[in-house]
Amino acid sequence: MQKTYKFVTAEEAASYVNNGDIIGFSGFTPAGCPKEVPTAIAKRAEAFHAEGKEFKIGMYTGASTGDSLDGALARADAILFRTPYQSNKDLRSALNTERAPYFDMHLSALASHLRFGFMPKPNFAIIEVCDITADGELIPTSGVGISPTIANLADHIIVELNHNHPKELRGFHDIFEPLDPPHRLPMTLLKPSDRMGTTSIKVDPKKILCVVETWRNDEVGGFAPTDEITDNIGKNVATFLAGEIKSGRIPKEFLPIQSGVGNIANAVMASLGTNPDIPNFEMYTEVIQDSVIALIKSGKIKFASGCSLTITTPILKELYADLEFFRDKLVLRPQEMSNSPELARRLGLITINTALEADIFGNVNSTHVMGSKMMNGIGGSADFTRSAYISIFTTPSTAKGGKISSIVPMVTHVDQNEHSVNIIITEHGVADLRGKSPIQRAHEIIEKCVAPEYKEMLREYLTLNSSCHTPQSLSACFGMHREFLKTGTMLGTKWENYKD
Amino acid sequence: MQKTYKFVTAEEAASYVNNGDIIGFSGFTPAGCPKEVPTAIAKRAEAFHAEGKEFKIGMYTGASTGDSLDGALARADAILFRTPYQSNKDLRSALNTERAPYFDMHLSALASHLRFGFMPKPNFAIIEVCDITADGELIPTSGVGISPTIANLADHIIVELNHNHPKELRGFHDIFEPLDPPHRLPMTLLKPSDRMGTTSIKVDPKKILCVVETWRNDEVGGFAPTDEITDNIGKNVATFLAGEIKSGRIPKEFLPIQSGVGNIANAVMASLGTNPDIPNFEMYTEVIQDSVIALIKSGKIKFASGCSLTITTPILKELYADLEFFRDKLVLRPQEMSNSPELARRLGLITINTALEADIFGNVNSTHVMGSKMMNGIGGSADFTRSAYISIFTTPSTAKGGKISSIVPMVTHVDQNEHSVNIIITEHGVADLRGKSPIQRAHEIIEKCVAPEYKEMLREYLTLNSSCHTPQSLSACFGMHREFLKTGTMLGTKWENYKD
Repeated sequence: MQKTYKFVTAEEAASYVNNGDIIGFSGFTPAGCPKEVPTAIAKRAEAFHAEGKEFKIGMYTGASTGDSLDGALARADAILFRTPYQSNKDLRSALNTERAPYFDMHLSALASHLRFGFMPKPNFAIIEVCDITADGELIPTSGVGISPTIANLADHIIVELNHNHPKELRGFHDIFEPLDPPHRLPMTLLKPSDRMGTTSIKVDPKKILCVVETWRNDEVGGFAPTDEITDNIGKNVATFLAGEIKSGRIPKEFLPIQSGVGNIANAVMASLGTNPDIPNFEMYTEVIQDSVIALIKSGKIKFASGCSLTITTPILKELYADLEFFRDKLVLRPQEMSNSPELARRLGLITINTALEADIFGNVNSTHVMGSKMMNGIGGSADFTRSAYISIFTTPSTAKGGKISSIVPMVTHVDQNEHSVNIIITEHGVADLRGKSPIQRAHEIIEKCVAPEYKEMLREYLTLNSSCHTPQSLSACFGMHREFLKTGTMLGTKWENYKD
Repeated sequence: MQKTYKFVTAEEAASYVNNGDIIGFSGFTPAGCPKEVPTAIAKRAEAFHAEGKEFKIGMYTGASTGDSLDGALARADAILFRTPYQSNKDLRSALNTERAPYFDMHLSALASHLRFGFMPKPNFAIIEVCDITADGELIPTSGVGISPTIANLADHIIVELNHNHPKELRGFHDIFEPLDPPHRLPMTLLKPSDRMGTTSIKVDPKKILCVVETWRNDEVGGFAPTDEITDNIGKNVATFLAGEIKSGRIPKEFLPIQSGVGNIANAVMASLGTNPDIPNFEMYTEVIQDSVIALIKSGKIKFASGCSLTITTPILKELYADLEFFRDKLVLRPQEMSNSPELARRLGLITINTALEADIFGNVNSTHVMGSKMMNGIGGSADFTRSAYISIFTTPSTAKGGKISSIVPMVTHVDQNEHSVNIIITEHGVADLRGKSPIQRAHEIIEKCVAPEYKEMLREYLTLNSSCHTPQSLSACFGMHREFLKTGTMLGTKWENYKD
């Protein structure tokens, strides 16, 4: 292999990239992202800028990435455009100040939209692998993302060969790209552990420009620990699902779980893991977190399909030390498969995602703080929610020590609307929105989910506009947000101050 | 057959239905809905009410219905609840005054949610047929809707045998109900003309309570004629699609078309039919309108798959007189198939639906007037939009003679959000939102689609909140609507009047 490919430093690899180039990056979350070359490109951009020259690149990633990718390029002011999701503080700052045009899109749609030509084709793909063969087989590491598509579309491929991931990961991936309409065929998975693809990404070896070696770990951070509020949310989710099985609304075989990322998701997984009325189950999700690995070890999770192992370094080392135990219990797929609405619907996923805010009529904001400032992006939440067997959103009932109610009259940005949100769960309880009119939903959410100190305020809101299907007041609907922006708390909101 | 089933009057059939019963009705739009028994149930309700007794029924339909169904039962104040879509003026009035709790849902989801037990099971199904066999085969008429599911779930079936629809319609339907998770299999259609089901709905004959004969036509109204504005919208759609084919972003084989209902849809179909750069094509849609039949006759449309023939009586009579010409060019399926997101995505639909209002960031309101009053419902628009190859929304740039701009800073209700809307088209032009940040989208929409008299107002709006991802002002975002509510026109909106 040493003879086949050109091994270079990250700086040399970066030197091939020029102003205006468009790059697709491997990985999904910090897992499986290239680390050396992006940082070297950022340094190259800084050198150009120091000379008064332009240097910006277009960026396609799987989802969020590590700081050596999004952080470095944002700090270097080197971003021409960026899609589809991010969670880096410096990138967030850049895109909220118009220094990085950002297009927030469903993660399942990116690969197909690139193939359709809806966005400019990447001319470079930078792909992290644990192994590469002389005939052009690339074996991904801990995250797949859009790697198969960018490897096919790009003119040039730069490989980061990461020796911290064992070559024995071959076999953990299920790599598949669908044909495009009008020639598309059904995706054939019938259960999370089925496979329909190959174990590697096959490319023309001539497209491989160079290989950069690295020994750097994925930049996966920990999450805030669970607390009484997240624990109660987790318990409410598990109790609700156990009740649905008992009632027959969820089949007694149970159904695969999709779960978002973060400390609420960890609390939910912990509760599902310990509730005796929840059968052993499978995951069909995008991000496999530490808590999933623990439940695979305990036997509660029988199988997990995802797009990435977004696992802290100590846990990932444990997993790699015991790889054969996990070989028939884990699979990683491109996000076009892991987040496929077709598969989510067929498999009948129970989807559990976190709301930034929800409104009393059942709409959910997943992305925008106060309607304007981008937090992270929609990610896969709508890929799963819209196609779920049953869709659940969780949120603590308040934020900022009670100064913000997470449940408001109207969300300031709608990412999941009333038509797709079945269940809202806070630490106070479970609101079941299925089959209810907007007014019935409002009463259900206020009485079951809202913090005690905000209940009366929201009940009063419902009286401002009567004789209509959805009693919104266009002058008052953002009164609680505007009160917070003026006074630092929603608690003192008086509706008479927000009437035309 | 006369010996097998009990033939009764509509009044006798209605007498089996009691207060609190839950009824599923056949059909989709006025096409294929029962007509005699619903009106008789409404009369029965009025008789009960006259005696001071309660009489209300729960109602599941395919979509909208005829006036003898929704209108009669709304006027009789006989609705316990109603889902998933409606367009009747008396029902609209009832649900906007809290006299009829209404749950607005995606049309593709209703049948599965009924099977899952997410809403109460119907105890009656009332199904219009053109033929019924002694062993329980029901042949639907001009609309299918949720008929297979309600026929399976209901304890009792009341059949309306409509002699105005020929028995020879057998073979025009493709009836299929998927298994539910965890046993669901792929839907196997690869092109609009494929089939995967049966030609009839098979039920246990013992469940058929009685048969009512009728000779009544579907209550399909005409639409407002096309005019200069709708013609220009239609031309813009056709020119845009021709350009996409030329650029390679739509394959040269073209792709199946889904089109909404109404006079804009008729103008769009007319333009697609006459534009020489649009190849002959297939439809995969929910409602087949008069304009589609004309294009099948001319050969421009090769095949149309839908859930209903929502065709005016004279055109339907012509079609029935020449049934063998249409036999290999038309198929009617349950809405779970016609609106299936899995199939929409696989087939690669070009979806064309109408917005009630759109905002400068690409969100679309399909349902609520001024955020509160329900117009019709979301219908199938999101089933198709969210799964489209490319999604288009059309709207005249203004309403009420220019007093309302159809494009506003923030829509008052979000039915299709920025993540799913690719293209917005008015009589003024085409806004292409793909791959653009919110601010880039806003400029694109304002410059291409907004009416001249509202352009400067919307440009100014963008300056109210800077340094953020999506420049919304929570105090001003509904300023244009509030101005209209106060003064009867949006034209005089001054942003300084809507600042905190």
